[in-house]
Amino acid sequence: MARPIVTLTTDYGNSDHLVGVMKGVILAINPEADIVDITHNVIPFDLLDGAMAIGLAYKYFPPKAIHLVVVDPGVGTPRRPILVRGDNHFFVAPDNGVLSIVYEKQAMLTAWHITAEHYFTQPVSNTFHGRDIFAPVAAWLSKAYQFNAFGEEITDIVKLGIPKPKAEGTAIKGVVLKVDNFGNLITNITAEDAPVLVAADGKFKIRVGKGEVARVITSFAAGASGEMFGIIGSSGSLEICTNKGNAARGLGANRGSEVVVEVG
Amino acid sequence: MARPIVTLTTDYGNSDHLVGVMKGVILAINPEADIVDITHNVIPFDLLDGAMAIGLAYKYFPPKAIHLVVVDPGVGTPRRPILVRGDNHFFVAPDNGVLSIVYEKQAMLTAWHITAEHYFTQPVSNTFHGRDIFAPVAAWLSKAYQFNAFGEEITDIVKLGIPKPKAEGTAIKGVVLKVDNFGNLITNITAEDAPVLVAADGKFKIRVGKGEVARVITSFAAGASGEMFGIIGSSGSLEICTNKGNAARGLGANRGSEVVVEVG
Amino acid sequence: MARPIVTLTTDYGNSDHLVGVMKGVILAINPEADIVDITHNVIPFDLLDGAMAIGLAYKYFPPKAIHLVVVDPGVGTPRRPILVRGDNHFFVAPDNGVLSIVYEKQAMLTAWHITAEHYFTQPVSNTFHGRDIFAPVAAWLSKAYQFNAFGEEITDIVKLGIPKPKAEGTAIKGVVLKVDNFGNLITNITAEDAPVLVAADGKFKIRVGKGEVARVITSFAAGASGEMFGIIGSSGSLEICTNKGNAARGLGANRGSEVVVEVG
Repeated sequence: MARPIVTLTTDYGNSDHLVGVMKGVILAINPEADIVDITHNVIPFDLLDGAMAIGLAYKYFPPKAIHLVVVDPGVGTPRRPILVRGDNHFFVAPDNGVLSIVYEKQAMLTAWHITAEHYFTQPVSNTFHGRDIFAPVAAWLSKAYQFNAFGEEITDIVKLGIPKPKAEGTAIKGVVLKVDNFGNLITNITAEDAPVLVAADGKFKIRVGKGEVARVITSFAAGASGEMFGIIGSSGSLEICTNKGNAARGLGANRGSEVVVEVG
Repeated sequence: MARPIVTLTTDYGNSDHLVGVMKGVILAINPEADIVDITHNVIPFDLLDGAMAIGLAYKYFPPKAIHLVVVDPGVGTPRRPILVRGDNHFFVAPDNGVLSIVYEKQAMLTAWHITAEHYFTQPVSNTFHGRDIFAPVAAWLSKAYQFNAFGEEITDIVKLGIPKPKAEGTAIKGVVLKVDNFGNLITNITAEDAPVLVAADGKFKIRVGKGEVARVITSFAAGASGEMFGIIGSSGSLEICTNKGNAARGLGANRGSEVVVEVG
Repeated sequence: MARPIVTLTTDYGNSDHLVGVMKGVILAINPEADIVDITHNVIPFDLLDGAMAIGLAYKYFPPKAIHLVVVDPGVGTPRRPILVRGDNHFFVAPDNGVLSIVYEKQAMLTAWHITAEHYFTQPVSNTFHGRDIFAPVAAWLSKAYQFNAFGEEITDIVKLGIPKPKAEGTAIKGVVLKVDNFGNLITNITAEDAPVLVAADGKFKIRVGKGEVARVITSFAAGASGEMFGIIGSSGSLEICTNKGNAARGLGANRGSEVVVEVG
């Protein structure tokens, strides 16, 4: 029997004791849990950044993996802790939209409001529900996968408005959703949104930050030295990159920067 | 049978090979070990910061967890490597005070000076006892939990003077012990030290950095926009915070900054 | 039976979903895998830095550990994915020299060009072979250790020219290969290269950055306050250090800085 997997995605950072505490809580309840870090460096309080981290990673894990996601600016308010069951992927998180990209990708979803306080670490603090609610619920869930034990089913889960690209005249306007470790600018524009980007002789230019991008190529190494280029990235969306360099610095662009594809 | 847990708390950072080397050493001795990172980002050489990381995390782990703590500015000097047994929590560390918060919290403690060199990785370097002494001792301990095998019991372990708040007239003066990932200032003042902070109609102001804090509230989200407020944090001490912002930056305060609670 | 170990060394950083995705891919193929991070903070695109991370860590892991190394500026080009078998240590990496320090240390090596596409995650992207080729190959390898199943044996693997120290007159000239988490400057000069450094009454001075180093001592704590000194580090090479301080900052030196040992 494989050990049950519990993944962690938080904005707690790697410098404090907080992540260690959550792992301790999980292992104290289920010593068989195989805890896997996705990232603890979600931008603090940033639900969209958290939504991207878990939304781009979860589907690669095996069936029955439990994904604990704690980006929780409303900790201590009445926002609900929830349990979400997708198609063989399970999630424990605050009901604040941090699972919104999961919701877009999973056709079948069931959600529960977590209310069964006997599963919580008592006393429950107002500031660290990762320790007191989310970690213990994930750990208990990993022992028996009894979803109904944690609370009532709900249908009114909170969803973020994930920014979508818009057509304006002949242009498609999008936004940088994330800057990755290499300085690549991950946008919200896919090849479906802007087919010109991947057309055989598509004519376009892309404006972002203080620069302009003239072509979309298929590998980093195909870029000329110093050139800023587009690439349809591994998650399916347009990324603005440069070969062995940092496009974000080169273009003076960042998360939230506008990206305009001008056709023709 | 659950796998034996070995946690790691160091100031080695996450960019070098050092942590990987320690994990390899542990797994080569005990392939069953379940290695859990608490943090590797203790401030370099900072015993108090290391003491807080392990001191605030260890008690959430299950019984028999072995906590390896390496913040070791005296590596290569005669400072002793020690093994410490608390109430079902075990520690391997240099005898330099990095376990001082553990010592405050554990009523029953037994300590051993680690001298059994046949458990060390030979030859023992003068600069990397994490690899040569602490990791192998933790790994061997996790196989049989034979404390007496590692050396003689000792009673004169080194303790840091953990800074305690002081009453001065009507004021309580404390200090910022840590700035967390969100910029919250974790102080050494508890509600027991300053009951006014949690009294129904307590009158006080808190001075820290270049600012003043007028109230202690119970959740981050109850703070007004831009307001600096106090909160009794998840580890029981006063934290200075701001809602979805960074209090350390906002107040120009940092680790070591004075915190004064003025009563009345 | 111990779980098969798969270690990870990449330049993906700890802030993105990429490392989590690779772990998911591995666990989906082999849920028994024990995944161990060496580091994900190799300097982006820097083959030598990656070569040092894995080259200094792998030999501490138990026999049959599989080391996945992804520093891959040529992803999407014809550079080959390879499988390398050393003396009971196994490696999966791009054939770009990132294993060069392993090659120096392992007398017996066998290498295979990975071509068995049925082991890849389909469709294979041009930008994330960590997910699509390296992780699945490592995971499949960890199930049965059938090296020949992945492709043809090759003998023309790519090797980096690892910078070696040179004698110039009475001087030995080397270079800083890495700055560690403490600011220690790890050089490419060993005691064999410059015996004067460890001779009983060796006379020398070491120039690096804007400073001069007068002696090599055996522990950090033996350094005077503020003194910059040499030490023969835990990996066998000269390191320039200061006691409880940051030598890189103190000397204005960095990776790539020249280090000159002047004898006499």
